[in-house]
Amino acid sequence: MRELIIETALNLFLKQGVRATTMDQISDQLGISKKTLYEHFDSKESLMAACAEVLLSRTEAEVQALRQQHASNALLAIAATASHAYRLLASMNPILFLELRRLPLSLRRSVLSRIQQIITENLTASLRQGIAEGTFRPDVPLQVLPLWFSYVVAYIVLNPDFTQAAGLSVPDAYAESLLLFLYGLSTEKGRALLETYKQHIRETYAR
Amino acid sequence: MRELIIETALNLFLKQGVRATTMDQISDQLGISKKTLYEHFDSKESLMAACAEVLLSRTEAEVQALRQQHASNALLAIAATASHAYRLLASMNPILFLELRRLPLSLRRSVLSRIQQIITENLTASLRQGIAEGTFRPDVPLQVLPLWFSYVVAYIVLNPDFTQAAGLSVPDAYAESLLLFLYGLSTEKGRALLETYKQHIRETYAR
Repeated sequence: MRELIIETALNLFLKQGVRATTMDQISDQLGISKKTLYEHFDSKESLMAACAEVLLSRTEAEVQALRQQHASNALLAIAATASHAYRLLASMNPILFLELRRLPLSLRRSVLSRIQQIITENLTASLRQGIAEGTFRPDVPLQVLPLWFSYVVAYIVLNPDFTQAAGLSVPDAYAESLLLFLYGLSTEKGRALLETYKQHIRETYAR
Repeated sequence: MRELIIETALNLFLKQGVRATTMDQISDQLGISKKTLYEHFDSKESLMAACAEVLLSRTEAEVQALRQQHASNALLAIAATASHAYRLLASMNPILFLELRRLPLSLRRSVLSRIQQIITENLTASLRQGIAEGTFRPDVPLQVLPLWFSYVVAYIVLNPDFTQAAGLSVPDAYAESLLLFLYGLSTEKGRALLETYKQHIRETYAR
């Protein structure tokens, strides 16, 4: 039952946003009483935290799988991961990115630091591989850059002040930031590959 | 007298940090009474705000002058500006970057948005010029990138969480971010110039 509740709530949160989704609506949709719902989650906030953890763990597993699928080409692995993340962001109700700011501080911090951890771990592995393959410059500071990019996502891409001022959606801010980052890291060989990737991500999912 | 107070306080703030600098120390150093000091500034906070505005206006004028000095080479203009900013950041007591976070919210916001405005205006002009000169890619989204970089400075370079986690000083975080950004924007021609610039900024001021 706990998992069913999380799935149902997660779908509603992603589609409608957090504020528009009530505990009543969740229990109605499941055909259970509110009492049963509250036996599993004592507040909407604890349900939200559980949903965030499920979504992030699932995304992490998917990203790792994509990386293993493209184990022989770091830029393809990043391209596939980026498209996956782009699609996920584009499927969310944009109100969620505004609501992220209004979350209780501890939940907001744990969500952002989990996102940063997934980015840092996977990007570090891909960058290391790309340097070996000759697509990334050998002199990129590996200890710093994946962390740096994770801050770009947490504090720029997911910052409503930025996306509003720039006139970009969150998925597009993400795509543009990633492309700029990858252009900066790539060798000539990598840049040629990037041109393909650029078209791929923009044509398949954007605008 | 007002200007003399600001100069004296600004020097002390930059050298010692805000917390370590008292109104007593400022009046002592000027050889004036505390009463006279408070006639000009009714609080340490209002004095800080005045000092920040003087420092930022001065920096803005210097940046514009450097841009005009190198009007025929956008990358040189950016390199000169970057070195200037690097030197300024390196001359400050690092405690100031931690103290920035503890400033009253309205002052902190106005300082950060002033920094962002200076970056955005000058970088936009230089990027436009660099595209015309063939050093920057013609397809860079000009409306977005200077704003994007200004967020990098405000939320990553000046964010003590980042610099601590990355093990970088603020000036080095600034230099690395700028280099990555410029590498991402540059054409082949620009990259060749960047190699010179890279050495310049790292050798002259860093480490």
